[in-house]
Amino acid sequence: MKNKGILTVVSGFSGAGKGTIMKELMKNYSDTYALSISATTRAPRPGEVNGREYFFVSTEEFENMIAQDALIEHAQYVNNYYGTPKDYVFEQLENGKDVILEIEIQGALKVKEKYPDTVLMFVSPPNAAELKSRLEGRGTEDAATIASRLSRAWQEAQGVEKYDYFVINDVLEDCVKKVHAIIQNEHARAFRNQELIDTIKNELKEFSKGE
Amino acid sequence: MKNKGILTVVSGFSGAGKGTIMKELMKNYSDTYALSISATTRAPRPGEVNGREYFFVSTEEFENMIAQDALIEHAQYVNNYYGTPKDYVFEQLENGKDVILEIEIQGALKVKEKYPDTVLMFVSPPNAAELKSRLEGRGTEDAATIASRLSRAWQEAQGVEKYDYFVINDVLEDCVKKVHAIIQNEHARAFRNQELIDTIKNELKEFSKGE
Repeated sequence: MKNKGILTVVSGFSGAGKGTIMKELMKNYSDTYALSISATTRAPRPGEVNGREYFFVSTEEFENMIAQDALIEHAQYVNNYYGTPKDYVFEQLENGKDVILEIEIQGALKVKEKYPDTVLMFVSPPNAAELKSRLEGRGTEDAATIASRLSRAWQEAQGVEKYDYFVINDVLEDCVKKVHAIIQNEHARAFRNQELIDTIKNELKEFSKGE
Repeated sequence: MKNKGILTVVSGFSGAGKGTIMKELMKNYSDTYALSISATTRAPRPGEVNGREYFFVSTEEFENMIAQDALIEHAQYVNNYYGTPKDYVFEQLENGKDVILEIEIQGALKVKEKYPDTVLMFVSPPNAAELKSRLEGRGTEDAATIASRLSRAWQEAQGVEKYDYFVINDVLEDCVKKVHAIIQNEHARAFRNQELIDTIKNELKEFSKGE
């Protein structure tokens, strides 16, 4: 029996360390995971490679993907489209890879509605003061910008109650292990093992006839 | 903030190795877990100690417990009562212990209905042939008895789809680790962290006022 992969959506406050966690996850368990690659209409930034950071497409191409229902979810920010092409994700899942998708809460909730088997995971620092100090620690933003980012973080947190997991990123290494363990244990959910359960039940029924 | 413990109900086919798994769990992680102790009206067997294997009580005492709603669940088998006293379980949960309760599916589903935060876990051998050979391996029962036990196993499996987890016990040591990881990861469920989520949200709101 081939085990299908699990789709996990990871969200979290900016400054929570999502990116680093996912990089570590891919590094430590590269056979297990595939990172979903988004399509976008925004121009590549220096160093970004098509098919690695993003699939860079034209607005027309993107709107065609929408029309053909070829995206798991999509959204528009600052006049650019961002979305998750179905093909790549479904192919990886069929191959037994656990696919990780990084999007914000509103998109994540839409994915869960469409694909209820999806695991929603929110990554948070242990407390808001820690988030504030991580943002300050970057040393690139003034107090007003930091306040506005914290305000955005608060807005972004609306809906987090509907997530499956709320994972604290305190010590990075521990957090990576926890995220990995959570996704792997999701494979043991009864509803993901319906086929195996039915097989065992049928076998038992046969055996109990005194075969 | 004190973390409350999680109540996990473990069920499984007889011959699936539930008992051994729970013994190992208690041995390896004794600070984490408490095993629920059932009350029963049946007479103690040689070697059984009151308050260790069971709380041995009279029928009158047991019926008083029922009348006072002092049991999480109870059932009657062969003229004897069996049940789970609330006091002990709730006390352990309050102390932050994860409590494990071993009962069959029908009782487990009732517990989940009454206490939706409960984790239901079903332990199974990898396949029915393995279960059959484990029963045969005991060498204590004839073919007819084994067929009847397998028939009972099949009946016992009705409702397993409603469980949270379906865990395969193939290699004991791996299975014990898996059960432990599953219960510990349940602590990261968003709905079990509502208080923490609210705290972080409120802090963020305060900070974003530019405090």
